[in-house]
Amino acid sequence: MASKFELTREYLDELREVIGTENESKAKELIQDLHAADIAELYNELNIEEARFLYLLLEGETASDVLAELEEDDRERFLKVIPGEVIARQFIDNMDTDDAADIIGELSEEKKEDVLLHIGDVERAGDIVDLLSYDEDSAGGLMGKELIKVNENWTIMKCLKEMSKQAENVDEVYYVYVVDDNNKLKGTVSLKKMLLAKNITKIKDIANEDVIYVKTGTSGEEVANIMDKYDLVALPVVDSIDRLIGRITIDDVVDFIRDEAEKDYQMASGISEDIEHSDKVFVITRARLPWLLIGLLGGILGALVISHYEGVLKINPQMVFFIPLIAAMGGNVGIQSSAIVVQGLAGRSLDLGSTWAKIFKEFLVAIINGAVLGSLIFVYNYFFTDSYALTLTVSLALMAVILFAAVLGTLIPLVLHRVKIDPALATGPFITTLNDIIGLFLYLMIGRMMYGLF
Amino acid sequence: MASKFELTREYLDELREVIGTENESKAKELIQDLHAADIAELYNELNIEEARFLYLLLEGETASDVLAELEEDDRERFLKVIPGEVIARQFIDNMDTDDAADIIGELSEEKKEDVLLHIGDVERAGDIVDLLSYDEDSAGGLMGKELIKVNENWTIMKCLKEMSKQAENVDEVYYVYVVDDNNKLKGTVSLKKMLLAKNITKIKDIANEDVIYVKTGTSGEEVANIMDKYDLVALPVVDSIDRLIGRITIDDVVDFIRDEAEKDYQMASGISEDIEHSDKVFVITRARLPWLLIGLLGGILGALVISHYEGVLKINPQMVFFIPLIAAMGGNVGIQSSAIVVQGLAGRSLDLGSTWAKIFKEFLVAIINGAVLGSLIFVYNYFFTDSYALTLTVSLALMAVILFAAVLGTLIPLVLHRVKIDPALATGPFITTLNDIIGLFLYLMIGRMMYGLF
Repeated sequence: MASKFELTREYLDELREVIGTENESKAKELIQDLHAADIAELYNELNIEEARFLYLLLEGETASDVLAELEEDDRERFLKVIPGEVIARQFIDNMDTDDAADIIGELSEEKKEDVLLHIGDVERAGDIVDLLSYDEDSAGGLMGKELIKVNENWTIMKCLKEMSKQAENVDEVYYVYVVDDNNKLKGTVSLKKMLLAKNITKIKDIANEDVIYVKTGTSGEEVANIMDKYDLVALPVVDSIDRLIGRITIDDVVDFIRDEAEKDYQMASGISEDIEHSDKVFVITRARLPWLLIGLLGGILGALVISHYEGVLKINPQMVFFIPLIAAMGGNVGIQSSAIVVQGLAGRSLDLGSTWAKIFKEFLVAIINGAVLGSLIFVYNYFFTDSYALTLTVSLALMAVILFAAVLGTLIPLVLHRVKIDPALATGPFITTLNDIIGLFLYLMIGRMMYGLF
Repeated sequence: MASKFELTREYLDELREVIGTENESKAKELIQDLHAADIAELYNELNIEEARFLYLLLEGETASDVLAELEEDDRERFLKVIPGEVIARQFIDNMDTDDAADIIGELSEEKKEDVLLHIGDVERAGDIVDLLSYDEDSAGGLMGKELIKVNENWTIMKCLKEMSKQAENVDEVYYVYVVDDNNKLKGTVSLKKMLLAKNITKIKDIANEDVIYVKTGTSGEEVANIMDKYDLVALPVVDSIDRLIGRITIDDVVDFIRDEAEKDYQMASGISEDIEHSDKVFVITRARLPWLLIGLLGGILGALVISHYEGVLKINPQMVFFIPLIAAMGGNVGIQSSAIVVQGLAGRSLDLGSTWAKIFKEFLVAIINGAVLGSLIFVYNYFFTDSYALTLTVSLALMAVILFAAVLGTLIPLVLHRVKIDPALATGPFITTLNDIIGLFLYLMIGRMMYGLF
């Protein structure tokens, strides 16, 4: 009985030493009890030579499982030096069709063909070619061809026999699908129901016809939402005339959900590629520089706005003190508003209310926040500065900035969503920078008006 | 055969009208084909009277399924007016133990006892009381008691018979667990293997002993990581002496992963509670105001920093132009750095490297980013301003700020993690605000030095 494997520094040091001395049997012994996912994780910590040495010690199914678990760029580097025939025979033949299609899809066109030509089982090769034709982020791209299906007219006895045959190709049996003579999906039948029913009962009579399914073109996001909402571990996929052609399993969807969440998170934090702390310095820099350039451009625009209003600042230099406050607050409010919209669009909450209703609500929230914060800074300035004009300017500008930032923060992701651009783009430094500038502009404009009055 | 239900404005209008006229049979007809999750979703769009009318039309298992699917606060409002006995008989008796424990856990102490006393099956009541004792976010809190287990010494024939009995209480059969005479977990056996083996084979001989399990105290985060990494749909939970006491299913973990991702995302965006766009204005305001107050405080501190260096700004007023740039850039870099650390800590990537190695790497990235951005702003100022001191000050300060913000952005979440505070706290407005102030300070200090030199 094995609990979770814990990768320790000691274990890693020992393994590296063994690899260093090219002691094959000792290395095999060290990794023999590991799950494929653990071995794949080990590879992150090894250099390419060490990893290759270890990889060549793996056998059959383990080797392909590890390959499927590797990070995409590690796998690419790996497969580059291996001939197509070996890839097909050693790895692809042992894999589920969905994993196989994912991996083959990453190869160059030339190599792709080479691998496909060398797949042993022609039917499997056909399945994989089919899968390759779907968009990676659609139900078709997420599904595998392995499933267990029974004809609605069969008896339980016949089913059990047929299922034993089919089961050899399927890792886990979650649902048994029921189809008619034309392979159209009619329902599901649970193993539990089969266990409880009599052997001569017809499948038709115990099948559950309320099966939830998707078409091949359904987006990955919707697939994830459906499986999450209805608590499904597998979801059948049908073609345009409702024929059952595949099924999506929950493990692929969990990966999808995590990746999407990470992407949104990174976007909100101003990182444009999927990176990890273990990536190379150059990769990390490349993912971050674009957003910082936007910030730089925003800063230069801000400088132009301030220089345009230089006269106001000369009359009351104390206005300078509150420039960071106004700029920061616009950014903070904007990012809050857009984050709520992005989350609403991404998933769970319904989208029945109109755009105007959303903006109106955000406006109400902003009025309350603006009133509270504006009053607080008013009190502070009333006691700690000696200019009424300044006190009024800062409070009014703060309220104005909060209102503007909230409306823009709501509106921009909604507009992006309507024109089919990922709304998460709006939550990053883009909206912060925009609101910084608008905030400055409002502040200085209000300041000029105020000093005209007093 | 039912595809996914699509909630349209037309459907909702019709339903509301029917509810308005209290037409019970028509309302029943409208909702009869809906999945419990769809009905729960409908409730978000109805007011409390409409929802109650609809709820009373539901029968037995559907009623309890809908209850389990409701949002926590909707459910609380609902259960408040229903006597404990009715809750126990109508809802809890039809639910899985894990859902039942979650719902009972939300009730007041008094009501909790009342409900538990009225649960029909004493053994079930005991199971639920057991589950209530675990921390909500631990393996014990996530698990349910329903599972199918067989003794390692049974034959397949005996197993199939016993499983039919046990299966009545279990919604879906994912794995069949193998235990010894003392109920200690020994492994799993797949239905597939049972289908393929002979009837007189002993379970022992076909059991897979490499089962991955967790203890009751394992954190929810680790449970999610393990199930994701090893692609599991169910995970057995054992007590301190390895006795099998429950299992966690993937649907609960998917919810957990989504909630965690949303929490991190909201934290990074400066929202302190789990809110949705459909929440009340007051709730949304309450979740957002705390972070804005931090921003306000930061702005006031910034004002104090600037006023302290007022003399420098008097000598060269153009320095004011670049205050927003410096402040914004500190915030942007800081949030990028901390986001990468938070993601690394939260899950997938390994944590073997030392803290110093991480900071050093972040430092390298910052040096590149700082050099690029510092050079760009140097060129801009060289051509568009007439002061060498200003040009040098802005470039140097920008580089210094990027370095400082990167190091702080890396260090703070690492420190928070070490002292067991959620590091995601660091990615929000907190780090932005801190870096704003440090940036201002560095800028003005460097400015003072420069103007001393020239």
